[in-house]
Amino acid sequence: MTEREASQIPKKDENFSEWYTAVALKAELADYSPVRGFMAIRPYGYALWEGMQAWLDRRFKDTGHVSAYFPLLVPESFLQKEAEHVQGFAPQVAWVTQGGDEKLSERLAVRPTSEAIILPMYAKWIQSYRDLPVLLLQWNSVVRWERATRLFLRTAEFLWHEGHTAHRTAEDADAECRLILGIYRDLLEDVLAIPVLTGIKSKSERFAGADNTYTLEALMPDGQAIQAGTSHFLGQNFAKAFNVKFLDSDNQEKYIWSTSWAVTTRLIGCLIMAHGDDRGLVLPPQIAPYHIVIVPILGKEEAKVLAAARDLAKTLGTRFRVKLDDRDAYTPGWKFNEWELRGVPVRLEVGPRDVAAGQAVLVRRSGGAKQAVPVNGITDAVGKVLDEIQKELFHRAKAYRDSHTTSADSVEAIVRALAEVKGFVKVGWCESQQCEDTIRERTGASPRVIPLDEKARGNCVVCGKPAKAWVYYARAY
Amino acid sequence: MTEREASQIPKKDENFSEWYTAVALKAELADYSPVRGFMAIRPYGYALWEGMQAWLDRRFKDTGHVSAYFPLLVPESFLQKEAEHVQGFAPQVAWVTQGGDEKLSERLAVRPTSEAIILPMYAKWIQSYRDLPVLLLQWNSVVRWERATRLFLRTAEFLWHEGHTAHRTAEDADAECRLILGIYRDLLEDVLAIPVLTGIKSKSERFAGADNTYTLEALMPDGQAIQAGTSHFLGQNFAKAFNVKFLDSDNQEKYIWSTSWAVTTRLIGCLIMAHGDDRGLVLPPQIAPYHIVIVPILGKEEAKVLAAARDLAKTLGTRFRVKLDDRDAYTPGWKFNEWELRGVPVRLEVGPRDVAAGQAVLVRRSGGAKQAVPVNGITDAVGKVLDEIQKELFHRAKAYRDSHTTSADSVEAIVRALAEVKGFVKVGWCESQQCEDTIRERTGASPRVIPLDEKARGNCVVCGKPAKAWVYYARAY
Repeated sequence: MTEREASQIPKKDENFSEWYTAVALKAELADYSPVRGFMAIRPYGYALWEGMQAWLDRRFKDTGHVSAYFPLLVPESFLQKEAEHVQGFAPQVAWVTQGGDEKLSERLAVRPTSEAIILPMYAKWIQSYRDLPVLLLQWNSVVRWERATRLFLRTAEFLWHEGHTAHRTAEDADAECRLILGIYRDLLEDVLAIPVLTGIKSKSERFAGADNTYTLEALMPDGQAIQAGTSHFLGQNFAKAFNVKFLDSDNQEKYIWSTSWAVTTRLIGCLIMAHGDDRGLVLPPQIAPYHIVIVPILGKEEAKVLAAARDLAKTLGTRFRVKLDDRDAYTPGWKFNEWELRGVPVRLEVGPRDVAAGQAVLVRRSGGAKQAVPVNGITDAVGKVLDEIQKELFHRAKAYRDSHTTSADSVEAIVRALAEVKGFVKVGWCESQQCEDTIRERTGASPRVIPLDEKARGNCVVCGKPAKAWVYYARAY
Repeated sequence: MTEREASQIPKKDENFSEWYTAVALKAELADYSPVRGFMAIRPYGYALWEGMQAWLDRRFKDTGHVSAYFPLLVPESFLQKEAEHVQGFAPQVAWVTQGGDEKLSERLAVRPTSEAIILPMYAKWIQSYRDLPVLLLQWNSVVRWERATRLFLRTAEFLWHEGHTAHRTAEDADAECRLILGIYRDLLEDVLAIPVLTGIKSKSERFAGADNTYTLEALMPDGQAIQAGTSHFLGQNFAKAFNVKFLDSDNQEKYIWSTSWAVTTRLIGCLIMAHGDDRGLVLPPQIAPYHIVIVPILGKEEAKVLAAARDLAKTLGTRFRVKLDDRDAYTPGWKFNEWELRGVPVRLEVGPRDVAAGQAVLVRRSGGAKQAVPVNGITDAVGKVLDEIQKELFHRAKAYRDSHTTSADSVEAIVRALAEVKGFVKVGWCESQQCEDTIRERTGASPRVIPLDEKARGNCVVCGKPAKAWVYYARAY
């Protein structure tokens, strides 16, 4: 990649939306496919997803969850069994109406989510309280027929996992929702370096069929919020729709309590937006497919430099994910641009003078600071730099989020905050649907999250009655 | 599981087909779903798939392959671009004709395989010989509209990976096919303990659109062969259909050479059949979700026995996958049946007398031999037993296969061998389609595999002309 090509990325500050798409395409994370609204996830983008999968799957297994797989297609009559659920999803369903030469007597939905195919199986498998809890998830893709799509952020098909658990009591199901919320928060903050507000959704923003939706909301650098993950307390709604009962130890037949939860490939879009800059992607070390790229700068002493670069790659490879870029068809400058575009946290340059001095030149992707590092002890030195970068990216994102979070005591003040500061606006709310609708209509913002365990004070910004909850509003993806 | 319930499994020798289905269901590997022909893969079955995935993915990555993801839906016009391909797959396609409220102007196929959606992307991505090879795969599910289905062996949806690679020369593409064939053979023989014949398919049995199909064929204990995996040399057929060209170093534009390859969840069906017995599953240690189940037999000294069982689980857990079954709602006998049904290779019983003697009683699932093992040094002792079991299962399956492989020098001799010995029958063949058709029609067997690097001798069993190839025939799944 030449300097000129690299400069073809629009400036992040000037045209955030085009900058985003250019980075997703040029860093080879994804591409448009021949099917409208469907994307192809390229290997470098998929490696980010594999990183999240591996991290999450370990956490899920450590907390007693197991994986399974359920059919891709859901009979229409099953989707209709939970009334709110079908209302929420039917407009977005891709329908299979023909199988081979056979016209189907009942349409089959390409799953938009799998409650309606999993719960009927639970009805077969769960008999007794001894069979509970059931802690299952599946890694798969779902289809939701979207007209206006953007790579990763909103696509007609996306990858996710969907957890579906069944419990003996409401308390157990609620505890599961909160456990998962915590795992997601750790993923976002500790791995992706993206700070999140956590809490619950107001009724109008809940998952179709849920009694309660826990959510994680992040703030992107254009001042818009994005829902990063959700964990749904489904109460007994799906249990009743699909007749999932168990015999409890008191010999009573009871409906199970269920949950469902997910994060999706949308998180790759969050990563691009949260940390990227005018030179492309900036990846937190915890999720970067490569921690380090080594670029030999050959000069006259080609063999010596290459040997030193290979030794370095071997040494560092015992602890880090290392890419040695020894392609001879490209110049060092081209490679610098290429790996900056791809967001590799640390670049090590090795030239003849470095070999002679027993050092490498370390360049940080974020900030671009250069320093010479002795090869002796380089593993620890690089480890320290990577830790610093991880923390720095999180703190920078958090400083942005905090400085773009304000509060308002009137609807006019919300409008002003959204215009001047952007970001989150925290308001008191009486919990009436009418007051929520008023804020939506007059500000263009939506209620993102009601923080947990934070007692409201003051009055509702709309009606002036005593506030029952805090709500963070924002314009949102 | 009581002795009575365990005995409800039909005898493997008496009714192989019902035995198979009973084991798949009762060992909780899979279940029928509300959608005809689609199964739900339960956690214990999915754990077998995860084991294969992890093993294969490591081998794929070690040989330079990367993962990606392509759309679930394929426009009909794309599927039609390769003439043989569409002929082969169109009769089995599930068609999406409606998205939300919108009737689609072009039908979309739920992918039966993804050449027709991946190759168009390669046309965008590949420009120069420097971009080659492209070594991609995806882990996903595909749908093929089947009427007569059986759990794992033939289902309307199955899980697989599909590799799709692009190369500069025919030789490179062929070498890729053989590399993958070798990886699959190692999976089958070293991990699943299932011996396979490897080689190529005759023309009539090739993948639709391939110039050559490499295959692995296993023999099941009912004397029928099963195709365990395939690796296709696609020549330039798909390159031409989708116009995938590159500029070579000689400045000429050339079509790429491509391959595709897969193994599927059908392998779980092979595992059940190859090793299972009248008590249920028998799993080779390399793939078993649990190597060892520990069953405490409490007696009077409950606390002491439980503590000893937990210590043992901790010790063995450092090297093996261990399940401690300390549920108090079930008797030891119930647990023995349950874990035998689920095929765990080694059971360790720990009772009061064992604790006093500093030992555990080791019972092998296969064969059922019992031996007392001192707790001191038990990790190495169990490791040795697991190695023995792995080898023993392979050798038993191979002995069966070898004793059910015969040769024939006439069509009548094939009929006789299939009736008397069953299994594979090796014959000489002149390579004419007519002679192949004659054998098919008169014997009910199909040509399974033409061994590589084995020069034919003698004459064609049908026409008597000089044989050009050996072919193994068998009745097949």
